[in-house]
Amino acid sequence: MTMAKRLMTLTGGIALAATLPAGLALAQDATAAAAEPGANTAYIFNTLLFLLGGFLVMWMAAGFAMLEAGLVRSKNVSMQCLKNIALYSVAGLLFWLTGYNLMYTGVDGGFIGSFGPYTFDAVGGDALDTGYSTASDWFYQMVFCATAASVVSGTLAERIKLWPFMIFTVVLTGIMYPITGSWQWGGGWLSEMGFSDFAGSTLVHSVGGWAALSGALILGARKGKFGPNGEIHPIPGSSMPLATLGTFILWLGWFGFNGASQLAMGTIGDVTDVSRIFANTNLAAAAGVVVAMILTQIIYKKVDVTMALNGALAGLVAITAEPLMPSVPVAILVGGVGAAIVVFAVPLLDKLKIDDVVGAIPVHLLAGIWGTFIVPLSNDGTSYGTQLIGIAAVGAFTLVVSAIVWFILKFTVGIRVSEEEEMMGLDKAEIGVEAYPEFGVGSQRL
Amino acid sequence: MTMAKRLMTLTGGIALAATLPAGLALAQDATAAAAEPGANTAYIFNTLLFLLGGFLVMWMAAGFAMLEAGLVRSKNVSMQCLKNIALYSVAGLLFWLTGYNLMYTGVDGGFIGSFGPYTFDAVGGDALDTGYSTASDWFYQMVFCATAASVVSGTLAERIKLWPFMIFTVVLTGIMYPITGSWQWGGGWLSEMGFSDFAGSTLVHSVGGWAALSGALILGARKGKFGPNGEIHPIPGSSMPLATLGTFILWLGWFGFNGASQLAMGTIGDVTDVSRIFANTNLAAAAGVVVAMILTQIIYKKVDVTMALNGALAGLVAITAEPLMPSVPVAILVGGVGAAIVVFAVPLLDKLKIDDVVGAIPVHLLAGIWGTFIVPLSNDGTSYGTQLIGIAAVGAFTLVVSAIVWFILKFTVGIRVSEEEEMMGLDKAEIGVEAYPEFGVGSQRL
Amino acid sequence: MTMAKRLMTLTGGIALAATLPAGLALAQDATAAAAEPGANTAYIFNTLLFLLGGFLVMWMAAGFAMLEAGLVRSKNVSMQCLKNIALYSVAGLLFWLTGYNLMYTGVDGGFIGSFGPYTFDAVGGDALDTGYSTASDWFYQMVFCATAASVVSGTLAERIKLWPFMIFTVVLTGIMYPITGSWQWGGGWLSEMGFSDFAGSTLVHSVGGWAALSGALILGARKGKFGPNGEIHPIPGSSMPLATLGTFILWLGWFGFNGASQLAMGTIGDVTDVSRIFANTNLAAAAGVVVAMILTQIIYKKVDVTMALNGALAGLVAITAEPLMPSVPVAILVGGVGAAIVVFAVPLLDKLKIDDVVGAIPVHLLAGIWGTFIVPLSNDGTSYGTQLIGIAAVGAFTLVVSAIVWFILKFTVGIRVSEEEEMMGLDKAEIGVEAYPEFGVGSQRL
Repeated sequence: MTMAKRLMTLTGGIALAATLPAGLALAQDATAAAAEPGANTAYIFNTLLFLLGGFLVMWMAAGFAMLEAGLVRSKNVSMQCLKNIALYSVAGLLFWLTGYNLMYTGVDGGFIGSFGPYTFDAVGGDALDTGYSTASDWFYQMVFCATAASVVSGTLAERIKLWPFMIFTVVLTGIMYPITGSWQWGGGWLSEMGFSDFAGSTLVHSVGGWAALSGALILGARKGKFGPNGEIHPIPGSSMPLATLGTFILWLGWFGFNGASQLAMGTIGDVTDVSRIFANTNLAAAAGVVVAMILTQIIYKKVDVTMALNGALAGLVAITAEPLMPSVPVAILVGGVGAAIVVFAVPLLDKLKIDDVVGAIPVHLLAGIWGTFIVPLSNDGTSYGTQLIGIAAVGAFTLVVSAIVWFILKFTVGIRVSEEEEMMGLDKAEIGVEAYPEFGVGSQRL
Repeated sequence: MTMAKRLMTLTGGIALAATLPAGLALAQDATAAAAEPGANTAYIFNTLLFLLGGFLVMWMAAGFAMLEAGLVRSKNVSMQCLKNIALYSVAGLLFWLTGYNLMYTGVDGGFIGSFGPYTFDAVGGDALDTGYSTASDWFYQMVFCATAASVVSGTLAERIKLWPFMIFTVVLTGIMYPITGSWQWGGGWLSEMGFSDFAGSTLVHSVGGWAALSGALILGARKGKFGPNGEIHPIPGSSMPLATLGTFILWLGWFGFNGASQLAMGTIGDVTDVSRIFANTNLAAAAGVVVAMILTQIIYKKVDVTMALNGALAGLVAITAEPLMPSVPVAILVGGVGAAIVVFAVPLLDKLKIDDVVGAIPVHLLAGIWGTFIVPLSNDGTSYGTQLIGIAAVGAFTLVVSAIVWFILKFTVGIRVSEEEEMMGLDKAEIGVEAYPEFGVGSQRL
Repeated sequence: MTMAKRLMTLTGGIALAATLPAGLALAQDATAAAAEPGANTAYIFNTLLFLLGGFLVMWMAAGFAMLEAGLVRSKNVSMQCLKNIALYSVAGLLFWLTGYNLMYTGVDGGFIGSFGPYTFDAVGGDALDTGYSTASDWFYQMVFCATAASVVSGTLAERIKLWPFMIFTVVLTGIMYPITGSWQWGGGWLSEMGFSDFAGSTLVHSVGGWAALSGALILGARKGKFGPNGEIHPIPGSSMPLATLGTFILWLGWFGFNGASQLAMGTIGDVTDVSRIFANTNLAAAAGVVVAMILTQIIYKKVDVTMALNGALAGLVAITAEPLMPSVPVAILVGGVGAAIVVFAVPLLDKLKIDDVVGAIPVHLLAGIWGTFIVPLSNDGTSYGTQLIGIAAVGAFTLVVSAIVWFILKFTVGIRVSEEEEMMGLDKAEIGVEAYPEFGVGSQRL
């Protein structure tokens, strides 16, 4: 999903068109292996890959919604549902209004693209020069932008006000995410330097994670999470099956996230790579689950189901930076270590009194850093130094700009609900619709 | 998805076959843009589009089930789950037994097709003359029929008897929906007149909506919904996360609903159009969410999460009549206005004492009318007058025939459970399986 | 999905390459019907079918998780969620480590393949000789293996210890399932004898069912399920909407399960067959729902929603052995009888004091036997005798080996939680995370 890859696809398409007759000639001596699909057929396959990948990643928005609805208390569940559908919507509008062009148009080795809304192919358009429909590409890139925003909402749950969160989402999806994205996938300076992040361990997941960390620091912890004498009070989520469902949805969507980041399937080489990516992605996630189960059994003498779920997600985030090149054992290693990081980082964040409601910072930020850093283990064309530069540059930008935005919001409209509203729950306070009006004691307890 | 389009596809396929050698010749001077895939490759792509679209729309049945399970009280949740899987099943059987042929065979400018079950391609069949596998087409059309039936079940929840509802579903999916469908997609009189409804704002959603409205009027409101002095008692649904999940499922499924209604992706023009449809569909839904949030914030000083969900659905229904031609700003307008209609229509229905449990009438009927009416704004080949004729004709037929069926059922088997059963909840009364036997006070409260 | 079919695909690919120029020549006289896609295009289509089918079947893991989470009591829901994501992960790792090669490499008419981990295509690999990417094939076969393991977890819920269950899963997915699979799909002795099981009524569902039956017999019933005087106490599940969601997910996933078992869609004959399979699969499931509804209405005077759900699943399991050849009425018959078997078998199992928490034995084992047995009704190339041999051989092997493994586990680490732990619920006892900490009385009641 680097610009290089994107250009290759483009050139490949044109080259292919030019060599098509040769390919057909070759076919005559029965060595049909050389006869790749014609340019139009490849265009259809490539576009189809974007559409398939796009709807799978869109579905991840539902996964985040369910994961977070399951991991917050019942008194804040409606709010979490609302925020997730709202942020997906805002990302969709903003990535059209400013995001796509900021990220992909005219970056040219630099730091930012151009301003203004994006225009799709005309109806029936047949601009073969791209090698795929531009609307399918936009759709696919848009759902990645939404994913970054989804990461933030979980961490800050149960205490942030709705509208300031929405304003932050506007800035994140319309400006911040596209800018750091332009550095790499838009063909900017990081890409020229040789940084590699196949499907977005850094550009998507860590960006979300840094923005979440910044918000968590500025917003502060939930009332009652940390006692005055350093006690840490676990606050259990309201529904494990919803959290599990969310994790399965995310796992499913990740095949689109990583697989379609190959950006083309109009040749047998490309579709073979997409297949490798599917397999490696699944193996990394599976390793994450197993490692989290074994570690929590050893450490806590019980398997923590939320850790198993987050282990799967950490495996997925970690393999995202390079899901193609690893052999199976390396994919398992990358995913397993990602999960181990989460198992150890969750209590560490608690000690640092950083209140991350769903564990998004360990999963998306830390496992994302790990996955990005370890790319050179399987990808010869990359270096650990450049990977670190990319991680640091994207992190610094996102952390600083996020903090500025959070502070501006804090000192203007305010970002945190009142103590009474927090006790009452955001559903009653800000939404007026309880999540489960007939069950439970959500508002009286915890 | 008009008959015209269907014929075009067909002719295109044949024409393409004939011109294929020319295309190959052209390729030799490197202008491969003209070399569309061969007829067999196009057949595979077209069939694949139906299969992909079909499973996505099938998934919408789960979306309706979850949406409705979340929006009824816990004492009626099992019933709502049962009705949704049952109606999807009945639609599947009836659309084979009578529906498909009534809708698509021998309509020929008229008002109805032919009677009798449908026969698929033989095993290994290679009838290229269709341009796609007939079984894939049947599957895709069938899930649309099921969608229309899904609309009805939500409105009439919490008070209608199971078996009369199932009988109505048989008539709706086996006879009513196919007849009005034949007028347009089957190449009947409306299609000849120039009516346009790309993916079914009227033919699917409004049909469901009219049938639901008719049922709501004849069935009456739930006990306790409207007080004797004109009070309106809100009856909150039992689970917001399930309602949210249902909405996300529907949104996902809608890419198949609208995207695959292009009916072909065997040329780069077609797959480019499918891509535009994906993008426009998403933007209309996103606009719907944002508009519903802003309007409810302004009007009620709180954002209503169910309104945001219904805003998404209204945006989706509205864009369904013409998801291809609009520019992005028009798609946003169409979706946003759809959501605004819902925000204002929900309290209006309450004032009219029409009890629509899930808001299906505003979402599917009213936003469907809006979307169908506004087609000429972006599609030059259509006229507002003809659009109104189509809306009115389909509406009148469905409303009248539905009413006749509901009245027959009312005066024979009865359509409404007894007052005691309604108080007790349909789950205990008719199903014998409570939805949440260990939680809640569903049967004691509300 | 037999080895024969696999070889055909392979040969077809090569043959196609050889005849491609002829095909092109043919195209010149406008009889393009003969011009199937070139070998590379077919390779892409075939690989894409595996990837699509693979992610749909992967999604079935979520379906089992939700179905089982809905059908156990709330005090065991977290455990059931954990087991399902864990078994999917273990299957993914084991089917790489030993499963794939045991099942598919060098079986050669025999009883077992070779030992050792599987290696995918190299990056960018273009080994056309397979006709598809090997990684896509591995991914697709792996999710089938996971499905077999999913069947077991439901039956044994609410009383089995976590880790012994995981050890059994390792043996089942790494050794047992691949061995019986090799007999047929790997080209072993059953396949040579003419046994037919298109997508796995026996090889997947009954294997899971036999393993579950063996476990249920050795593990014993839940406390309180069967009274001392032969009373049977129904133990209702905690959430019907989750069970319904699970069923819809499984239904959706089944299009991949059966449809992609065609193993190829690079010709119009193949994609037409995939379409027939989609339609027949849906019709069998629909018939299952309707039959279960009618039968439970007649027998119990109320429609049992869990029976309707299991009716759908039984219809799906039954059609799986032969989803391609049946005419629509036969598909309806096969699915409907499958559901009838479940309606009658569930109380029978209770009488035999076999405690199957979710009804997996009737659904997956009995409907699987029925579906496999009835294949010759629509497939002339098969015989009832050979079908019975296959059913019996796979059943005997799985039942015996499972029993050995369960007994070894029972007499070493133990397989059943203590009585106090069972009363308390596995979530508190073994997981430490309650599923719904704010609702319900799960741990006090039932």
